[in-house]
Amino acid sequence: YGKNTIKFLRLHREGKKHFFKEVEVCTHLRLTSAQEYLDGNNSLVIPTDTMKNIVLVLAKKNGIPTLEQFAIDICKHFMTTFCQVAYVKTYVQEVPWQRIHEHGVPHIHSFICVPDGIRFCEAEQCRNGPLVVFAGIKDLKLMKTTQSGFAGFYKNEHTTLPERHDRILCGELFCKWSYGECRDFDFDSIWNKIRECIIEAFSGPPECGEYSPSYQKTVNCIQMCVLSKVSQVQVIEVVLNNTFYNVVDMTNLGLTNDKEVLVPVETPYGSCACTLARK
Amino acid sequence: YGKNTIKFLRLHREGKKHFFKEVEVCTHLRLTSAQEYLDGNNSLVIPTDTMKNIVLVLAKKNGIPTLEQFAIDICKHFMTTFCQVAYVKTYVQEVPWQRIHEHGVPHIHSFICVPDGIRFCEAEQCRNGPLVVFAGIKDLKLMKTTQSGFAGFYKNEHTTLPERHDRILCGELFCKWSYGECRDFDFDSIWNKIRECIIEAFSGPPECGEYSPSYQKTVNCIQMCVLSKVSQVQVIEVVLNNTFYNVVDMTNLGLTNDKEVLVPVETPYGSCACTLARK
Amino acid sequence: YGKNTIKFLRLHREGKKHFFKEVEVCTHLRLTSAQEYLDGNNSLVIPTDTMKNIVLVLAKKNGIPTLEQFAIDICKHFMTTFCQVAYVKTYVQEVPWQRIHEHGVPHIHSFICVPDGIRFCEAEQCRNGPLVVFAGIKDLKLMKTTQSGFAGFYKNEHTTLPERHDRILCGELFCKWSYGECRDFDFDSIWNKIRECIIEAFSGPPECGEYSPSYQKTVNCIQMCVLSKVSQVQVIEVVLNNTFYNVVDMTNLGLTNDKEVLVPVETPYGSCACTLARK
Amino acid sequence: YGKNTIKFLRLHREGKKHFFKEVEVCTHLRLTSAQEYLDGNNSLVIPTDTMKNIVLVLAKKNGIPTLEQFAIDICKHFMTTFCQVAYVKTYVQEVPWQRIHEHGVPHIHSFICVPDGIRFCEAEQCRNGPLVVFAGIKDLKLMKTTQSGFAGFYKNEHTTLPERHDRILCGELFCKWSYGECRDFDFDSIWNKIRECIIEAFSGPPECGEYSPSYQKTVNCIQMCVLSKVSQVQVIEVVLNNTFYNVVDMTNLGLTNDKEVLVPVETPYGSCACTLARK
Repeated sequence: YGKNTIKFLRLHREGKKHFFKEVEVCTHLRLTSAQEYLDGNNSLVIPTDTMKNIVLVLAKKNGIPTLEQFAIDICKHFMTTFCQVAYVKTYVQEVPWQRIHEHGVPHIHSFICVPDGIRFCEAEQCRNGPLVVFAGIKDLKLMKTTQSGFAGFYKNEHTTLPERHDRILCGELFCKWSYGECRDFDFDSIWNKIRECIIEAFSGPPECGEYSPSYQKTVNCIQMCVLSKVSQVQVIEVVLNNTFYNVVDMTNLGLTNDKEVLVPVETPYGSCACTLARK
Repeated sequence: YGKNTIKFLRLHREGKKHFFKEVEVCTHLRLTSAQEYLDGNNSLVIPTDTMKNIVLVLAKKNGIPTLEQFAIDICKHFMTTFCQVAYVKTYVQEVPWQRIHEHGVPHIHSFICVPDGIRFCEAEQCRNGPLVVFAGIKDLKLMKTTQSGFAGFYKNEHTTLPERHDRILCGELFCKWSYGECRDFDFDSIWNKIRECIIEAFSGPPECGEYSPSYQKTVNCIQMCVLSKVSQVQVIEVVLNNTFYNVVDMTNLGLTNDKEVLVPVETPYGSCACTLARK
Repeated sequence: YGKNTIKFLRLHREGKKHFFKEVEVCTHLRLTSAQEYLDGNNSLVIPTDTMKNIVLVLAKKNGIPTLEQFAIDICKHFMTTFCQVAYVKTYVQEVPWQRIHEHGVPHIHSFICVPDGIRFCEAEQCRNGPLVVFAGIKDLKLMKTTQSGFAGFYKNEHTTLPERHDRILCGELFCKWSYGECRDFDFDSIWNKIRECIIEAFSGPPECGEYSPSYQKTVNCIQMCVLSKVSQVQVIEVVLNNTFYNVVDMTNLGLTNDKEVLVPVETPYGSCACTLARK
Repeated sequence: YGKNTIKFLRLHREGKKHFFKEVEVCTHLRLTSAQEYLDGNNSLVIPTDTMKNIVLVLAKKNGIPTLEQFAIDICKHFMTTFCQVAYVKTYVQEVPWQRIHEHGVPHIHSFICVPDGIRFCEAEQCRNGPLVVFAGIKDLKLMKTTQSGFAGFYKNEHTTLPERHDRILCGELFCKWSYGECRDFDFDSIWNKIRECIIEAFSGPPECGEYSPSYQKTVNCIQMCVLSKVSQVQVIEVVLNNTFYNVVDMTNLGLTNDKEVLVPVETPYGSCACTLARK
């Protein structure tokens, strides 16, 4: 049980310059006993309202140096403070505010929301077990307008899809990776590096791209790229929900459509997920 | 990988009277090989477009006698037809259309959408393993305006929640149960019986209700009620996402508010989940 | 300017039996002066926080006998209390809770949310003008699986739609009507009667239905039915957003699909709106 | 009546470099006659399916040089081609794709979705009337963490809001302006200039900001800034939906919270709208 979507903003001032993070936190616990379920005995139950208070107090006391450090702080607090807690898990997601720049000059206290991929992290711990940290990005929408195809697939009497050697590849990415047991990492710069890896593996070189024979291969490329370039990542899960773009048949309208006008097919949509770990 | 939200309507006519089910189907596969991820070799990949065709063809050929039977048909088809399939999972969800009645007379072909709890089911199978069937209800919103409290909980310096012996209990329920290995059940009547159980266990007797000392206890009551009354259920998972209703303090406005005007607190919200199995 | 989505629940007890309405209220004002916009002079500005307080206080003092009466109370309060108000408009929408029945017995305090059409109303008044009341229903999803077609329409070189004499008609209805200047109506029973009219005009007789040659004609039938049967309605606006159901072509899959399997086309969707007044 | 959310992508290639716009189009017509409503006579009705075809054909033939030019093309086509059209209105909205840059190098065919304000436009025309063009931006979320207050407002017995001289101002902006009768403008550069104006008027100078005494004054500043700097704009409407951030009272938790931890209040929310025209 726990509390979901605890939303707040943590503001920090350095002179007249303002810094802040706005986050959503979910915190869940499992207790050592189940008597509240069985007997209605609440004596060990930490109210979800208290959980919310603790999250806010920790934000006030420690600030949010990184999302990951904040999630670690929360887990440690619950595990240390309450001996009835058998397991704790915390999820922290950031609202994607960016500082406004006017003609190249950063504004001291004005911000714009730019949701081009949402950063999140998770920390979890079982009593007597290690504190494990995950991080990730979600709602990252990417498209390449060529260098993608799908051919040589299995066919039978239910196959009507034609082979394609030049199609649009468009999808929403969810990537989550594990740092393994918690250590003292520079979480911000690693996260930025991984985001860059994902986009580069998806896109290929800027002057020519790289051919993708399937969503599956693109997912694997992203994973291999991250694992090879970022040594701190132990396991990486990638989910790619893709939107197919259908070339409109304009023959009946007396026109030849050379992949110029395409219509997105939003339902049904394909999905492809893979989890890859280091040996 | 797989295809999500394959939406369609299956119509069936008996003379002038029309019957139909509108559903959303998700079908996911795991293959025996991973060469499409590693080498870009698609030769064993069943396109998600073919999956969609198969779902539609099965609907056309077999109809949808029950959601569960349709999910079973889909799983069996994939496992039987494609030897490269290592695992198959199908989710089927129903759009809640109900026949319109005019002055008590059922209409032969006119329907209204009544989303008071969405019926769904799942079937899954590993190669050489049993076909397991789940069913459930989601988005079921219930409220009781009294006979609920929360007291005797654990307190420390971060506790600000007062004890309450008469509060509103309002939540959105997700319930999913397993029938275990697939057998020839009357899925429709069992589902209706379980829905009734859930509502009764939540509400208590119509003339007095039954006191709930916590969300946890209510979740447990629902589970115990279903397990005791419906022998076909092997395991039952219940998630209760609750909305707290805050009694508005009107002292500053010169009024006494005796739990007459309450404001829903939608974020953050508490969540409580439990899975219970037969011994 | 104003306050939107003021959500609250107004509870009323008769002995052990509980009654309540949960509503969302939006209240907007226009002031006689614009000095807050031009000069930053707020001296006439009623804070939106005060608006919220007033709505809650009126709910506490008067209850919510009907949505319409409550909207009227709010408008009158603002017009009477604040001479700087030039115009006031209030929108009230109900959360569709229904009392639970167990084996036919109504429960004294337990409810279920059944969103099969949302009831709303509006009241508005200009200073020195009449108080006008509107009511309506929205998000009402209806379907008829036959007795609908579309033929004889205008054709040119951009027309690819075939004529149809038997198709599915499925749409989401928005209906809003004006009662004209506020009088002492039985708003609840009128609203229920209009909802019945809408459904009957859409469906036709239960044993045979009635043929609809277009969405436009169905919209007009609904309007004519309401205007002829409910004398208190002065003007009625109907918007029908329709989802087209496409018969899946299964020829390539070796099957004949006699309108048995259909796929909803959710985007783009057609929309048809008409406002009709009494002479 | 008309067709909503006609979604498509228009791709354009220059050598190996790809350019595209993905848009959603809504097109609505009013006909000179109402016989389809009254008599079920469809002979003048242009099917919404044909409208969709026309939009796609125009995209194929003319491309989408700017959103505004495309909306103008659509209106002109309907008015010129169909004498039964009395009024036409077209809305075009852009999916906010941006070209990916890798280490500063623009990618030839890879894009990312960055929804930091959605661009849209509208064109409308009555038969024998001028073609009028509107443009706008919506879903633009901005925040300033200081230089905002609200004081000196009207108070009575329902006022509980304290005066504030340093609060967070956070809101979602909708701005729509009219270019008046259609002329040959550089719509892209004007739109970018107006977006810059809006952000600067909201934020004030980067090194100090500018004090906002109310949402209303901020709305007016934005309008005055646009009207003074962009001569092509005739009328500008601004709607600011604001989220209030509540400083968490931590006294009970033994802490002093100097505007460091704040909680967003998402419902109810204030709204403030103003339309301003040149003299």
